[in-house]
Amino acid sequence: MSTNKDIEEGVEFIPKFDDKGLITAIAQDSQTGQILMVAYMNQQALEITIQTGYGTYFSRSRQKLWKKGEESGHVQKVEQILVDCDQDCLILKVTVDAGQCHVGYRTCFYRALKNNTNKKLEFIGDRAYDPNKIYGKRS
Amino acid sequence: MSTNKDIEEGVEFIPKFDDKGLITAIAQDSQTGQILMVAYMNQQALEITIQTGYGTYFSRSRQKLWKKGEESGHVQKVEQILVDCDQDCLILKVTVDAGQCHVGYRTCFYRALKNNTNKKLEFIGDRAYDPNKIYGKRS
Repeated sequence: MSTNKDIEEGVEFIPKFDDKGLITAIAQDSQTGQILMVAYMNQQALEITIQTGYGTYFSRSRQKLWKKGEESGHVQKVEQILVDCDQDCLILKVTVDAGQCHVGYRTCFYRALKNNTNKKLEFIGDRAYDPNKIYGKRS
Repeated sequence: MSTNKDIEEGVEFIPKFDDKGLITAIAQDSQTGQILMVAYMNQQALEITIQTGYGTYFSRSRQKLWKKGEESGHVQKVEQILVDCDQDCLILKVTVDAGQCHVGYRTCFYRALKNNTNKKLEFIGDRAYDPNKIYGKRS
């Protein structure tokens, strides 16, 4: 059994998967620091990511492994993997060549709360590509 | 009932809390882009964060609201709140004056996988303060 000190101050990688077997993984542009997306990994997705060097996740909606970019071609080359103090969250520092969000933006975080209130969102991201050309027209 | 299009391409803020009533919130240094920590908010924590302009979360371990820095003084002044495509994750762009992690580092992500393997971690962060002086000696 690992102690808190082992987990927080040690050099052993002891990723903590939640009760659904998942760990949160943030993909961050290694060049700009921009946060691109947040997804989830099960143990297998993490192992594949480490082995292949490409961001691979577990899709909660589809309940299956999902190599980011397998459909769009917008893969994530992993440069570095960071873990937080209690080892229940990862950052993947990645190199990407194009938009990462299926809606067509470079990042999934393309909207901000207007004037920091909870009323309305404003768009702050630029379209990176036309998703209709990759995924077909959205309903 | 909101459609996917409303959620992903609209200007209504419709945060999606999970089955525990929580939404993931990433605190990111608004100046450097460094990811400082990942925590969770319930609806009340989100409302207090918006109203006060200071990062406030829901502690899963303590099962209570938690203003970041209430004990250490290392508060987070919120500059901007971003939401992702499916509105189940937030970024708080924050200004901070000191270390954000209870272990004593500026960020909770002070370790990386050595050589991108899953064997060992290496420390990549600098200590920002001595946590023993704030929280007492760790066991």
